[in-house]
Amino acid sequence: MIPLGKTKFTTELQVRPDDIDLFRHVHSSKYLDYVLAARFDQMERCYGMSMQTFLDRGLGWVVKVSHLEYKRALGIAEKFHVTTWIEDVRGSDVEVRFDITKADTNKTACTGWCVFTLISLTSTRPEPIPDDVLAKYAV
Amino acid sequence: MIPLGKTKFTTELQVRPDDIDLFRHVHSSKYLDYVLAARFDQMERCYGMSMQTFLDRGLGWVVKVSHLEYKRALGIAEKFHVTTWIEDVRGSDVEVRFDITKADTNKTACTGWCVFTLISLTSTRPEPIPDDVLAKYAV
Amino acid sequence: MIPLGKTKFTTELQVRPDDIDLFRHVHSSKYLDYVLAARFDQMERCYGMSMQTFLDRGLGWVVKVSHLEYKRALGIAEKFHVTTWIEDVRGSDVEVRFDITKADTNKTACTGWCVFTLISLTSTRPEPIPDDVLAKYAV
Amino acid sequence: MIPLGKTKFTTELQVRPDDIDLFRHVHSSKYLDYVLAARFDQMERCYGMSMQTFLDRGLGWVVKVSHLEYKRALGIAEKFHVTTWIEDVRGSDVEVRFDITKADTNKTACTGWCVFTLISLTSTRPEPIPDDVLAKYAV
Repeated sequence: MIPLGKTKFTTELQVRPDDIDLFRHVHSSKYLDYVLAARFDQMERCYGMSMQTFLDRGLGWVVKVSHLEYKRALGIAEKFHVTTWIEDVRGSDVEVRFDITKADTNKTACTGWCVFTLISLTSTRPEPIPDDVLAKYAV
Repeated sequence: MIPLGKTKFTTELQVRPDDIDLFRHVHSSKYLDYVLAARFDQMERCYGMSMQTFLDRGLGWVVKVSHLEYKRALGIAEKFHVTTWIEDVRGSDVEVRFDITKADTNKTACTGWCVFTLISLTSTRPEPIPDDVLAKYAV
Repeated sequence: MIPLGKTKFTTELQVRPDDIDLFRHVHSSKYLDYVLAARFDQMERCYGMSMQTFLDRGLGWVVKVSHLEYKRALGIAEKFHVTTWIEDVRGSDVEVRFDITKADTNKTACTGWCVFTLISLTSTRPEPIPDDVLAKYAV
Repeated sequence: MIPLGKTKFTTELQVRPDDIDLFRHVHSSKYLDYVLAARFDQMERCYGMSMQTFLDRGLGWVVKVSHLEYKRALGIAEKFHVTTWIEDVRGSDVEVRFDITKADTNKTACTGWCVFTLISLTSTRPEPIPDDVLAKYAV
């Protein structure tokens, strides 16, 4: 396989009102949504292959494992950066690591990793990652 | 068309932590989600045709209009009832009215109505409501 | 009261993966979330008084009525504009109208209006809108 | 400290329409919401101290780490069980393990663990777990 460049890409996002919980902080499950939003953006903008393109090819990415460590809560309407990179590729799986940092202080809000599995939309079973995708993900 | 019976059906639900907003009340957009959850339940349990059955027949329901009047906020883990009935059927549209009431006091939390449109999943265009569905909805 | 200028303000947003429903379109309840996200942005950026400032003064805005008409579905990762303006002020209530338009075609995705009520956080009862807020909202 | 009984408690829940993603399965971040919903239920029903009681005492629980392994997707309106137990208590932290199983087949949908930290609502800093809470959690 092509060696992984592990290039880091960053997406800026902002907290929405529906993300806020009873402590007036971002609700814990929303951080994974932020990672997914950043990946969708970066798949198109940075790796050159959008989620829609995968769907059009009969492929989809599903989450196999998510691991999040919450460090500092994000607050109402706060701006933040989601940096992700591909740490490893194993069969149909891609391990993505991420850091979510506060835009104003650059301090870590949340850090962790996910394993995503490529599936066939027809069989819903894991699918080998096509070579052209591997090439794009090697950046 | 068969006259509408306008029978009211009720589903009991409970507030989830992810529904709570910065005021420690249910976030405004979640009340529509409660109506949809009750309709999915009642489509299967009360009208005898689940959302999945519609999908299997190549049909889907989409929201055309939603109108909600918020009366009393629901709180953390609160139990409540969602009562809905079909007020009118017009072409591909069904007008559903609803009342959301607090389980402990029976007071109204939210009231309103939605118009749902039946669509074909292939064309994504409005589709005449099949006669067997009209018969079920006439209860 | 100061006459209302009814100036329109616009916020650009993008669909997140957690907004997508079983039809691969934005889930109906998320459009209200988009309106609220745009209002939070515009309260700070356009009217000069953020939600946090209201909270710091012991005040909050809650939704009294929401009315949404869904015209064209937004899709995966789609960019869109939320334009809002203050149509009327009545006692503790502000009527806000909105249009959500697709960024690429400028066609309407959703249109409607909300009534927001200013409340005291301590009493949770409606509160007269302070004169300095009325002045800011008259733009 | 009192030895932990590690008693397992189970809550039955049902998938809501707003939980469904573009693959017509439950969106990945919602499984954490299901765990939190089950914990809120079990805190009140099984451990005898509701989240509201913690809030009334000036205390709150926040998520420090979440780790989820997704095994089988839950689908539209599917019923499922969330079983949780306290595996360990360390200072202000409680490690909760969970299994989410399908109601019809009893097969695992998702498994994992969370660390929750008790905080003071005034300082927002970790707070030693009071003895009466430790006693309740030792079941």
